[in-house]
Amino acid sequence: MAYKIGLIGAGRIGRVHAASIAANPRAQLVCVVDQIAAAAESVAKQYGARAGTLESALAPGIDAVMICSATNTHADLIEQAAAAGKAIFCEKPLDLDVARARACAERASDAGVPLLVGFNRRFDPHFAQLKARIDAGVVGAVEMVHLTSRDPGPPPVEYVRVSGGLFRDMTIHDFDMARWLLGEEPVEVSAAASVLVNDMFKECGDVDSALVTLRTASGRLCVISNSRRASYGYDQRIEVHGSMGMVCAGNERDDLVEVWDGGGSHGSKVKNFFLERYTTAYRSELNHFLDVIELGARPLVGAADGVQALVLAEAALKSLRESRVVKIA
Amino acid sequence: MAYKIGLIGAGRIGRVHAASIAANPRAQLVCVVDQIAAAAESVAKQYGARAGTLESALAPGIDAVMICSATNTHADLIEQAAAAGKAIFCEKPLDLDVARARACAERASDAGVPLLVGFNRRFDPHFAQLKARIDAGVVGAVEMVHLTSRDPGPPPVEYVRVSGGLFRDMTIHDFDMARWLLGEEPVEVSAAASVLVNDMFKECGDVDSALVTLRTASGRLCVISNSRRASYGYDQRIEVHGSMGMVCAGNERDDLVEVWDGGGSHGSKVKNFFLERYTTAYRSELNHFLDVIELGARPLVGAADGVQALVLAEAALKSLRESRVVKIA
Amino acid sequence: MAYKIGLIGAGRIGRVHAASIAANPRAQLVCVVDQIAAAAESVAKQYGARAGTLESALAPGIDAVMICSATNTHADLIEQAAAAGKAIFCEKPLDLDVARARACAERASDAGVPLLVGFNRRFDPHFAQLKARIDAGVVGAVEMVHLTSRDPGPPPVEYVRVSGGLFRDMTIHDFDMARWLLGEEPVEVSAAASVLVNDMFKECGDVDSALVTLRTASGRLCVISNSRRASYGYDQRIEVHGSMGMVCAGNERDDLVEVWDGGGSHGSKVKNFFLERYTTAYRSELNHFLDVIELGARPLVGAADGVQALVLAEAALKSLRESRVVKIA
Amino acid sequence: MAYKIGLIGAGRIGRVHAASIAANPRAQLVCVVDQIAAAAESVAKQYGARAGTLESALAPGIDAVMICSATNTHADLIEQAAAAGKAIFCEKPLDLDVARARACAERASDAGVPLLVGFNRRFDPHFAQLKARIDAGVVGAVEMVHLTSRDPGPPPVEYVRVSGGLFRDMTIHDFDMARWLLGEEPVEVSAAASVLVNDMFKECGDVDSALVTLRTASGRLCVISNSRRASYGYDQRIEVHGSMGMVCAGNERDDLVEVWDGGGSHGSKVKNFFLERYTTAYRSELNHFLDVIELGARPLVGAADGVQALVLAEAALKSLRESRVVKIA
Repeated sequence: MAYKIGLIGAGRIGRVHAASIAANPRAQLVCVVDQIAAAAESVAKQYGARAGTLESALAPGIDAVMICSATNTHADLIEQAAAAGKAIFCEKPLDLDVARARACAERASDAGVPLLVGFNRRFDPHFAQLKARIDAGVVGAVEMVHLTSRDPGPPPVEYVRVSGGLFRDMTIHDFDMARWLLGEEPVEVSAAASVLVNDMFKECGDVDSALVTLRTASGRLCVISNSRRASYGYDQRIEVHGSMGMVCAGNERDDLVEVWDGGGSHGSKVKNFFLERYTTAYRSELNHFLDVIELGARPLVGAADGVQALVLAEAALKSLRESRVVKIA
Repeated sequence: MAYKIGLIGAGRIGRVHAASIAANPRAQLVCVVDQIAAAAESVAKQYGARAGTLESALAPGIDAVMICSATNTHADLIEQAAAAGKAIFCEKPLDLDVARARACAERASDAGVPLLVGFNRRFDPHFAQLKARIDAGVVGAVEMVHLTSRDPGPPPVEYVRVSGGLFRDMTIHDFDMARWLLGEEPVEVSAAASVLVNDMFKECGDVDSALVTLRTASGRLCVISNSRRASYGYDQRIEVHGSMGMVCAGNERDDLVEVWDGGGSHGSKVKNFFLERYTTAYRSELNHFLDVIELGARPLVGAADGVQALVLAEAALKSLRESRVVKIA
Repeated sequence: MAYKIGLIGAGRIGRVHAASIAANPRAQLVCVVDQIAAAAESVAKQYGARAGTLESALAPGIDAVMICSATNTHADLIEQAAAAGKAIFCEKPLDLDVARARACAERASDAGVPLLVGFNRRFDPHFAQLKARIDAGVVGAVEMVHLTSRDPGPPPVEYVRVSGGLFRDMTIHDFDMARWLLGEEPVEVSAAASVLVNDMFKECGDVDSALVTLRTASGRLCVISNSRRASYGYDQRIEVHGSMGMVCAGNERDDLVEVWDGGGSHGSKVKNFFLERYTTAYRSELNHFLDVIELGARPLVGAADGVQALVLAEAALKSLRESRVVKIA
Repeated sequence: MAYKIGLIGAGRIGRVHAASIAANPRAQLVCVVDQIAAAAESVAKQYGARAGTLESALAPGIDAVMICSATNTHADLIEQAAAAGKAIFCEKPLDLDVARARACAERASDAGVPLLVGFNRRFDPHFAQLKARIDAGVVGAVEMVHLTSRDPGPPPVEYVRVSGGLFRDMTIHDFDMARWLLGEEPVEVSAAASVLVNDMFKECGDVDSALVTLRTASGRLCVISNSRRASYGYDQRIEVHGSMGMVCAGNERDDLVEVWDGGGSHGSKVKNFFLERYTTAYRSELNHFLDVIELGARPLVGAADGVQALVLAEAALKSLRESRVVKIA
């Protein structure tokens, strides 16, 4: 029997999850909710579900909800879904405010429902394999992590305005990866950033290029390199240096074709779009959510992880504003 | 409306196509036929189809058949399906005998039904992209093709015995690729071969390692390197040299993770299994078959291609036996 | 006619330059000076020069001196060589103290003698080619620089004790590369560092692992990743991100051999030793010094560059001590 | 004391060896001989030697000769040098005629002088390392060798006319590599070839593109891919497949710089010129020659190797003419 899922939010990322549900025999999309009725109906129709209200998504008979709506609705929805006893998947971030994120996480915990946060990168097969090698001791004790995470191009200004800024919107993925790969909590955060790509970011009080440095209590170090532009594609690379060696994961390309000519060798482009790059990750993420529901597995990315990434984002913002290292309490 | 498909043969490759059909909204698996009733039933059940006899697969209401049974049944099945007016997909080879292959191809042609031959490699996204670059003139006039095609390990002796031998079973894929990439018909074939991997091949009157050289009328050259063993995985590489440069496609790996340590750098294994390596190719192949049915598209790999690959395989065998270059009439 | 050169310092790096002089038809090693007479004599004998005192190295007839002695002698020697009117090559750093470095640089300038500072990496053919591509506009406006510079293993404790610390001894090369590649002066410096490799560094009041972030007035960013250990060899990599693309230079390996087996692919080690990695760079550096002497070419790395790298090193140290961003006046 | 060397032939390859001698402290160039007096004088002057007649190169006091003159003079010169008791290095091929090559090799053997044949590729550090891995058993028993050897562009017609044809001029290097890497003598040779690059080859009765297949008595296989044109540089690659894996060596590039942009990734060109590609090989070759002289080391490439490569070249030619596999007695 497939688990019955209510999808809240039928935008771009909601559609990704709807497709994953349709492709997974363990899950069934039964209800789609969206502010824009037509959007909900379109997704519902495509996958044989019904469009409905929030109430119908939280009605008895629904096993789990996947929250893919606008960020400012996440916390309220988590609390309502927890109250209704549903297993919860929530896209990142939980909220733009740490205290609010903590509060809704507690409500889920009190209700005894599982909460999986949508840090999809942990489910990418390359990164999962890289982490497995670290855990197997292949590089010894982790000493330094380099995360390169650069978008192919900036999002629309309307998005930037409500995004919470680079650190809470984009770097938050890297904060989660850093915590995961460092194997220890960062206790010091330092950020340098600029507007180099598009003045629109300045107008929104945001930045588009950043280097964020983290340090754990035992001295492990991490640097995150972000940009809102990478002309060569969606740049997603990791290097982890340990006492016995280094393990890294490079970019996926469109294909493996190379041309050699009088100008040298020419390889294909790095995959350009996050949906294309992380297709498999989204499928695995859903599968893990179903394991959480079915087998009671501990969420690989729990509410505490969602909160802690947000704490680091706030610290980075503070570091940037005050030109100093910010300590995490 | 999805096209109704009858699947003939519920073995390993039949199951691959069943899964592709299930994942393609344009196709519907309605009937599964196999000598072994349990095999047909298992596949039918998994995909909501019914197990049946050959008659039921050729009954009115079925739009197309996919022939995935043992090689020695292909020609007869093609003729029966043609007589029933079905669109036909047939796994390679059409038959082990050139004359028989030609005959059944003619019957399909006379019946006016489309016949697509299962040379799946033409549908691989890397190789398709490589071909597209050649067609776009990126390397100028094609001069030489290097095909490396090495299996991870030998098949069971039962399979080898009825396989028709290395050239008709394994190299036949490369003969098709050679014709496709050379852009001209080979007119001279020369083969060198040995038993180096396993004496079982000698006992079956077969070889397990071979180099086959082809030459077209205008002098274009191709070498095919085959082995029934590649400890590092399923080795599938192409190099095409032209007057203006070279285009190549390397192997897909399990993942993009690399470890650097005191012993150097260590990359992940080449994908080991043909189903895993050519997953996307099989999906695209089916999609093309549906285009052939729906849009009347010309099969990318038609009956004549199936026959001509067989002609080259026979010529290679003759070259091997007579230690000389064999000319194709 | 070859330029007559006096070599001051016959230790490891002095011997590198002696070998370069011997291999360059435009230069002649005439005099070798070292505190340890036997060292001077050994080098002198090998290359057909004479061992001598400092006076003899500054005597009339000598065209240029190459200062390769201990760091704490550099500034005095520059001043004496300037007074004697010699063209000067000085190994990095000019001095551990910025004011002292500035003073001796001024003396050379006042004397009108050319002074080339030994930042050998600018002369590496790969890095020189990378810089040429940037200057040719291949990546558009420079936005971010990633420098990875990791030693294969820590130096002896005696060396660490007098080295001036990681930033002035090792990162100083990267500060110079950063300035060169950013194309603008860094105005903000922030450092995070730890002792992860060997407690000996702690005992010396030093660190062995560091991330240093730089920012220029226009907002260009740079991160330097340093470690005193890289089990996989001498890790020397550069990535420069610009508005139109990225240009990078990877590590040189011992050889181009790869092994593919059941465990994946295995490439050869990264060159392990700086002398081996930068052999060509040292040869080109000398050649440039001879161009400076003969053709009056402007030193690619002048006294001001030597001073400015030191200013950044001091700022990094201050940032580390005060946990804040340090602004460069 | 350096060994005194007489250089016979002051053309392109003679100059390469002259430079190697000058750079090697164990050797001294004392005498240069060339049909064109000015050529001999120019080289002699550059390296502090004297231009002279053949007699002076064979005079007492000369330890060894390096024969770098036109191919049709090699055999006579070997015999004269052997009669004079000199250690002999001779550029490939010994002669265009197998019988003549055998005869002169015997004369050297009878005279008890060492004879090293100039198959420089065996001394290339990458290929030497590849061979060392094979000898260390890394890939198990050798099964198949792929040699790719493609010139950047055709030689002048005057050269082609007297070259002895592709197999004796160019492929001869690959025949030697094949024997070395197969670890067994080829006993069957088959060739396919065309004129695809330039009709000048047809006018000279030669070919410019070829695939040559070799087979040893135990069944090991080798294919050699040759072309007189490779727009992307001097293509020199080796793959050796064994029972336990594969070892390969790729091309050297001009530098390690890569550019990533909207069109993909772009690496630098393969080294374009054989002198540049094999600089180190020529140095090592001379060093080995000096070991042969000084330590009585067995030449890594002896007269028998020179003869056998020629035997394979003749067999390839015969195979091409007779469209059949040619057996080596």
